[in-house]
Order: sequence, then structure tokens, then C-alpha cells
Amino acid sequence: MANSTPGRGFETLTWDNGLHIIDQTLLPREHRVVPLADLDAVAEAIRSLRVRGAPAIGCAAAYGLCVAAWGSEATDVDSLRQELRAASKTLARTRPTAVNLFWALARMERVVEGEHGSVDDLREALLAQAHRIRDDDDAACREMGRLGAELVPEGAGVITHCNAGGLATSGYGTAVGVIRAAHEAGKAIHVYVDETRPLLQGSRLTAWEMKSLGIPATLSCDVAAATHLASGRVDLAVTGADRIAANGDVANKVGTLGLALLCRHFGVPFYVAAPVSTFDPSLASGKEIPIEERTADEVASLYGVATAPEPGEGFTIANPAFDVTPAELVTAIITERGILRPPYVEAIGGLLRGA
Amino acid sequence: MANSTPGRGFETLTWDNGLHIIDQTLLPREHRVVPLADLDAVAEAIRSLRVRGAPAIGCAAAYGLCVAAWGSEATDVDSLRQELRAASKTLARTRPTAVNLFWALARMERVVEGEHGSVDDLREALLAQAHRIRDDDDAACREMGRLGAELVPEGAGVITHCNAGGLATSGYGTAVGVIRAAHEAGKAIHVYVDETRPLLQGSRLTAWEMKSLGIPATLSCDVAAATHLASGRVDLAVTGADRIAANGDVANKVGTLGLALLCRHFGVPFYVAAPVSTFDPSLASGKEIPIEERTADEVASLYGVATAPEPGEGFTIANPAFDVTPAELVTAIITERGILRPPYVEAIGGLLRGA
Repeated sequence: MANSTPGRGFETLTWDNGLHIIDQTLLPREHRVVPLADLDAVAEAIRSLRVRGAPAIGCAAAYGLCVAAWGSEATDVDSLRQELRAASKTLARTRPTAVNLFWALARMERVVEGEHGSVDDLREALLAQAHRIRDDDDAACREMGRLGAELVPEGAGVITHCNAGGLATSGYGTAVGVIRAAHEAGKAIHVYVDETRPLLQGSRLTAWEMKSLGIPATLSCDVAAATHLASGRVDLAVTGADRIAANGDVANKVGTLGLALLCRHFGVPFYVAAPVSTFDPSLASGKEIPIEERTADEVASLYGVATAPEPGEGFTIANPAFDVTPAELVTAIITERGILRPPYVEAIGGLLRGA
Repeated sequence: MANSTPGRGFETLTWDNGLHIIDQTLLPREHRVVPLADLDAVAEAIRSLRVRGAPAIGCAAAYGLCVAAWGSEATDVDSLRQELRAASKTLARTRPTAVNLFWALARMERVVEGEHGSVDDLREALLAQAHRIRDDDDAACREMGRLGAELVPEGAGVITHCNAGGLATSGYGTAVGVIRAAHEAGKAIHVYVDETRPLLQGSRLTAWEMKSLGIPATLSCDVAAATHLASGRVDLAVTGADRIAANGDVANKVGTLGLALLCRHFGVPFYVAAPVSTFDPSLASGKEIPIEERTADEVASLYGVATAPEPGEGFTIANPAFDVTPAELVTAIITERGILRPPYVEAIGGLLRGA
């Protein structure tokens, strides 16, 4: 199985006569690689966060169309095309906030709508495109890491929220890629990992990655970030992003805004690491970014044990999955094409025009 | 059993031929009243948060000395006094941050050191003092509620962190007392409850109190406070306090500082409700307040299920129980003797000189 390359630790998703992913809902208790045999399995895996993180969702959706193509019984290109258009719609409905999903599907759709001599030609072209999306992501992460590591001082304390790590990407990570590159460059850093309620991507995934990679790290509750910052132990924050508007407002895992405010209060830089595919120039500001509301039971129970009263009689539970950090709180955005600084409208416009 | 008075809902602790408490670690799944038969049981209950919240810890410690006195086999006043001095030291070691614990023990020690004709006289005097501490707390909470309710506009959204409710006091609550008094005054308020990691006092206790009292409320993860504030639905925040320094810096459940920063960012007032016993004029600023560090397993597992990797190999878990909110972020402090506003050095000095 190619999902556990020595020296690399793990591979978030691989194609080996079909799509295989690490089931992230089982971590850290179990490191299990599972096949996603049909389109429904891929859609379910994205919805239920078996595979998550904006870049990894994009890769999973791209390979999801390959799964649909390989599973199809269509015998002519037009029939397969029709099935793939429907499959793309199914995948686009899985999660609303990460724009990389729609970006990856758009790249795959260009292949679907191209000229193909046979059903098998279309299948192979799709797989080649999915591999390119994954390889581009890997290259982007490594370049973000290289550029971002220069922002990490020797001996720095670095705080991060959620998992913008190898598990959120094709394998190297965005925010964690920056951390990893600083560590690989020999800097003696210490990482503060927010546990990231409600689904604990920080404690389950980022802490697991730090330990796997041998990077010194301290896990704590999201609210304890204040304590670490107040102590002076934290020199910078770096997170990923699910979508960035034209003005530099950043949608990311709920809790990112609170962390950015703590950084501002304590005079610590707050960085975002995100590939160019995360930018959505069609949205003028973060106010327009759709924020996914997930089910109450993610907040009200853990592993089947109730931790809150039942909703009802005027009592409700809210579970927004993301929040929007205004551009004014973002010190810089690390992309694979360079580090953007305010004013972001100009910097992002220039970046995307250069694309 | 007196612990479930109709119309009042519940009683956090009662004396009925011995000390009985609601075991708060079992809520919301089970509302069980348990006896604390000896000093060790009282100390364990405070340490393990079966009874918690600064004012309730003070009451529990006061009754704890009564438990020690009733359980003693001493036949003369001096012998009983010696046992009670040791018992007071044991109780003082249970938790370091809430100053009400030390304040209540000091009030009890004045009784211990007074003149008593017999062992039984000393016992009765201790019980009378413990009852006074509880009754004073109840009266203080109701007065804070009355005063604080005037700060709550009709139709307000009110956010709170942790449980500064009836369960954290003799029964009415400090921050929740303010919320409750506004509700009882007929104001149509809506309460946003932070779940309060790691021990979920918000979802387990405050949400349970809101539902029991029929006050409309929404529970969410601590990090989702940002979403509620960004939406404009929140008009004010009110929390309790575990200790307040002479300059108005407030130690309270970890996460309070982050909430106060969100309030500042979104232009919403941040109030603290705390009885006079919470002030510690011996500490010039919040930097001097000892912050309890609790065990890693509170963060790394829930109901026995591991949610993080095992500590080791450079990986650690931090679990500070409190943080310090600087006075500059506190709009006002609601006490039973009036509402304090900046500059706090003068306001607190005047309050305590008047004591």
C-alpha cells in the first residue's frame, strides 16, 4: 500500500487501481486506509470529514470523478460525459465553504468537455488531470513551506488552529507545510496546537502529525491559546484557509478569527498559508462567503456520549464550521507564488492576473 | 430532600444532618444529590469539580469545616480547634485560583478561634457561620442580579462563558443571576452559552440551567462566540470571576480573555459579575494571580475515549484552568454593593474601604 511511504509518514489519498484515503475520523486511535469504491462513497467521505481540508477536498473531488468514470458502464464518450456532469454536481454539493472543491471540479470538467476518442481515453485523461491537481498541490505546499519558513524565526513558538497539514492536502500541508519546512531547515521551533472543537482536528490530526514528524508540540484547548500568547511563548500564528475573498478576508475553521484577535492583542503576526486555488476573486469580501452550518450532535455529544441537554423548549445548538477573519487582522498570506501583504485588493488582483 | 425546591429548580449544596451536594460531574445526564460524609470527601469533591464555581467552592469549604467538626471525636474545645485548623489547611490546598475559598475559610477560622463553652457550642457556631456564608452569597447574587439586570436591554442577546450560575453559587448565580433577573423582569432575552472546554461547564451546566429555568438559549463551541458576535446577535457579555486583583484584572475560566477580546473587536460591552469576596486587594495586578494547571487527561480524553496522541517524544499537553482578562477590556464589574466602572484601582479601593 502506497499510503505509508517511509520518511514521508503517510499519504492522505492515493490512486492504486482506485481511490484510497486515510479515514481521518479514526485518527489518532487508528491509522486505517480505506477504499472509496463508488461516487456515493466519495461524496460521503467528504461530507463526513473522512477526508477534509480545503486542498485535500479538491484532490478527493478530482479523483471522485475518476471513480465515477471507472465505475461507469457507459460505452460511448457522450454517455460517460453526461454521467460525469451529474457526478460533478453531486460532489459540488458535499461542502459549501472550501472553494478548492469547485476549482478542482472546474479543472476536471474542462477535461470532461474536451475531445476524446473513446471512453477509455476520457478515463485516462481524467486520471492524468487528477494526478496533476494532486502533484500541483504537493508542489504548491512545498513552495509555500519554503517561502513561509523564512517568516519563522529560529527558536520560534508557532501556534496553529485546526489541521492545515499533510492530512488536509496531498501530503505536505499548507500551514503545517510552513512549520515543517522551518523544522526541516533545522530551526528549533515549538508548535502550539489548538485542539479545534468540535471535531478536534487539532488534537486528532495536527498533534498526530507533529508527533509523527518529530516536531516538538504542545496541545491545548482552543481557549488556552490566550494563555500561551499572554505568556510570550508564541512568536507567530499560521493557519490555512478555506476561501479568501478579493479583499483578503479569510474564511477558515471556526476559531481562526478569535486566534487572529489574540495575535493582534499580543502584537504577534498572524499568517495564512493557502494555495492560489483558495482565492475567490468573484467575492468582494468575506461577508459573501457561504459558511457551512453542521449538525448539532457534533457539539452535543462525543463518541456517542451526550454532553449537553437535548435541544427543545427554547434551547438550540449552533455549529458554524467556519468564520471569517477580516483582512485587517492578517499580517501576510503565504502562497506558492509569493507572500502577499496589505493592501490585499491590489496584491490579490496582481497575483490572479499573473495566473 | 431539600435539593429540589419547586420553582427554584435545584440547590447546589444543602445541610441536612450533614452536607449534600449535586454531583456536577454527572450533569446533564443525571441530577444526583450525594452526601459528603467526611473531610476527605469534601476535599475530593472540590478538587474533582463535583462542586465548583468560586462562590460555591467557598460555601463548600465552609460546610466542609462543619463536616470535620461533626465527624470529630474530640471531647474538648482545644482538641477540636486543632483538628479544624488542620482541616482548614486541607481544604485550602484543594484549588489555588478562586479567592472565595480562602475568604470563606478565613471567616470560618474566626469562629474556630473564638470562645466556646463546649465542643457542641463550637459545632453549632460553625454551622451558623456556614449558613451565614451561604445566605450572604444568596443575597449577594440576588442583589447583583437586580443591579446587573439594568444593564441588559429588552430583547438583548447575552453571551456567557463557563457556569457562573446557580450551580456555581448557593443557588442563584452571579453572571447567570444577572441573566436570570433580566428574564424574571420580563425582558425577552436570548442567551448564547459557550460550551467551555475542556470540562464543558457551559454545555453540561449552564445550558442545563437555562433549559431548567425556561430561558431561551443557544449552545455552541467556545470558538463559535466569534460567529455570534460577528452576526450582531450579541449585545453584551457577562461572566463570573474567580479572583479580581486591585487594579481590576479578572481571573476567570480559561476562554474569558478571548471572549473579552471578541467583545472589544465587535464593540459590545463585557461585564463581570462577582461578589465582593472575589476581590483580592493584596494583589496589585492579575499577573500575581496563581493559575491552576489541571491534568492533561481532561484535554486528551472524554468519557474515557482518547482524543489525542499520548504525550511523549516531544509532545505535551497544557491545561491551564483560568486566564486573566486585563481591566482595560472590562466594561464594568457588577457587585452586590454597586456597579464598578474604570478606573478600577479607585473603584475597588473605595468598595473595599467601605466594607
